[in-house]
Amino acid sequence: MKTVGYAAHSADSELVPYHFERRELRGNDVAIEITYCGVCHSDLHTVNGDWGPQPYPLVPGHEIVGVVTAIGDDVATYKVGDKVAVGCMVDSCQECDQCEHGEEQYCRHGMTPTYGAPDRETGEITQGGYSKHIVVREEFVLRIPDNMDMSRAAPILCAGITTFSPLRTWNVKAGTRVGVIGLGGLGHMAVKLAVAMGAEVTVISRSNNKEAEAKELGAKGILASTDNEAMQQSLNAFDLIIDTVPTKHDVNIYTPLLDVDGSLVIVGQVGPLEELMSVPLVFGRRRVAGSLIGGIAETQEVLDFCAKHNVYPECEMIKIDEINSAFERLAKGDLAHRFVIDMGSLTAA
Amino acid sequence: MKTVGYAAHSADSELVPYHFERRELRGNDVAIEITYCGVCHSDLHTVNGDWGPQPYPLVPGHEIVGVVTAIGDDVATYKVGDKVAVGCMVDSCQECDQCEHGEEQYCRHGMTPTYGAPDRETGEITQGGYSKHIVVREEFVLRIPDNMDMSRAAPILCAGITTFSPLRTWNVKAGTRVGVIGLGGLGHMAVKLAVAMGAEVTVISRSNNKEAEAKELGAKGILASTDNEAMQQSLNAFDLIIDTVPTKHDVNIYTPLLDVDGSLVIVGQVGPLEELMSVPLVFGRRRVAGSLIGGIAETQEVLDFCAKHNVYPECEMIKIDEINSAFERLAKGDLAHRFVIDMGSLTAA
Repeated sequence: MKTVGYAAHSADSELVPYHFERRELRGNDVAIEITYCGVCHSDLHTVNGDWGPQPYPLVPGHEIVGVVTAIGDDVATYKVGDKVAVGCMVDSCQECDQCEHGEEQYCRHGMTPTYGAPDRETGEITQGGYSKHIVVREEFVLRIPDNMDMSRAAPILCAGITTFSPLRTWNVKAGTRVGVIGLGGLGHMAVKLAVAMGAEVTVISRSNNKEAEAKELGAKGILASTDNEAMQQSLNAFDLIIDTVPTKHDVNIYTPLLDVDGSLVIVGQVGPLEELMSVPLVFGRRRVAGSLIGGIAETQEVLDFCAKHNVYPECEMIKIDEINSAFERLAKGDLAHRFVIDMGSLTAA
Repeated sequence: MKTVGYAAHSADSELVPYHFERRELRGNDVAIEITYCGVCHSDLHTVNGDWGPQPYPLVPGHEIVGVVTAIGDDVATYKVGDKVAVGCMVDSCQECDQCEHGEEQYCRHGMTPTYGAPDRETGEITQGGYSKHIVVREEFVLRIPDNMDMSRAAPILCAGITTFSPLRTWNVKAGTRVGVIGLGGLGHMAVKLAVAMGAEVTVISRSNNKEAEAKELGAKGILASTDNEAMQQSLNAFDLIIDTVPTKHDVNIYTPLLDVDGSLVIVGQVGPLEELMSVPLVFGRRRVAGSLIGGIAETQEVLDFCAKHNVYPECEMIKIDEINSAFERLAKGDLAHRFVIDMGSLTAA
């Protein structure tokens, strides 16, 4: 199937229109016309080559919402016209213990990312959601709940599941004291999701500037990490901290805020952190962990959860030809939370 | 009560005989004549001032075994002649949630260490087990099981509980794949205890030099961290790693050895570690944690466990007047596992 998208042709080039082929449907494939695609910071990192060399031309995008336009002969779960979504993965071995228990993101043989990775059968490089169409095996297609606003759902597929999964893994429930460091794409979803779970949520930020916003999202307030007195008063104050900071930083500021047995979970930074101090860990059995997106079943769960609890990402809608300026703003942190591309703005021409 | 011990009088002085008073018995106090005291690396760190200024003169020692010589009027648990032990703590608030559920080591108001800390009632500085006698409130006195060899029990009170507690907290059982980094006082106890729990234990060390010894302790083998091929083959190979390294080191060598959801638990180093890499944590939901000794109930549990399973520390017995040369050897790492002082060698003169 011929389609069109926006691709980077090198680490330092802008995204430009790119005509390419989506594979012909295999028996278990679903063809999707993409209506919206979220813009994740990792799209920018990847096309810039920050995480290693890439197989250009590369179409990024892994927060994909759309409508089924065709199905393979063996597809039982979806039919033409269904509202569906695709997240950060499009395949995995489907046989190992991790896949067996629904954690395909930790597949023993490596899951196949939505873009920039070889297809498991043909070796063809996967291409993401900044495009008109995508073809994905049905096991990696999610269902958009009937009552969900499709135009606001896309960031749930990465920012949503990335924060939902650790909230579930660390058993957040009514009354759990959750801290969220950062209030960007991931952070604001962490706040909304934890609030919807009944948690008592505090945003941890460099200053109090975003206090009103934090409260609008449902947080009880903000803790300014530069306010020594407030930080002292917040020792042992959290059961779980979701750390969405996407750059090298010092977690030792935050670990003493954890209660005994509390965990700080890194979901933002992929790379080094500053020297780790063992004292807050030892003297409180505290933990520093990481977490990667979530499994397919859990991704369906977060979609259903968001529909049920009316939790939506804060989206700034852009047209596809605004993507390069959006990337520039993303690099500078000059946006509220999340860009979403209205893919209706991408004409097939 | 008059007694005698070996005290440091400054950060750079040797330990010398020191005559001092133990408090008169309070209603809930137990007086103990000390028969054996283990020599912990933290004794050396503390008297050297490595962990901050100390209230000299200071008698170290918190791996204490002895016999009850007198009891306060209200003591119900122990009687004169009982074989008992004292570990790293001699008091806590006894009222907070942590004390309530038996984790006095994480007391909200701070537990009272066995030496170098103000007594909660009088402010008098606690003095440790390199001495003839000690007086401790009964809630912090442990019972030595009848069939236990007292001469070999002392290191269970710190090295034993420090490794037993994380093995229990992280639910080690038959078949759990446990790695133990280091084979000193803590490490060799971690191996013996984990083996006794039915775990499949591997010692992780810089070289294979100690392979025979590791196997004698019950480990299935040794993994040399300098052997790149062996390290590659051991990716994802452990559910839990107990890290006993007592100096600044790089945990990123070890975290990829953890399976998904696995934890590396720091029990040796109190201070900085090298820069922490988030990638192994994120791409496997791995965790780096710390753990501090254990509660009183759990310390009794490890004593009973060791008696039942015939688990003993490897002890090199010394006389009290050999303590300074023992400290020198400890600083150089020139000992097999643990020194234990035969306190019978300390005359009251």
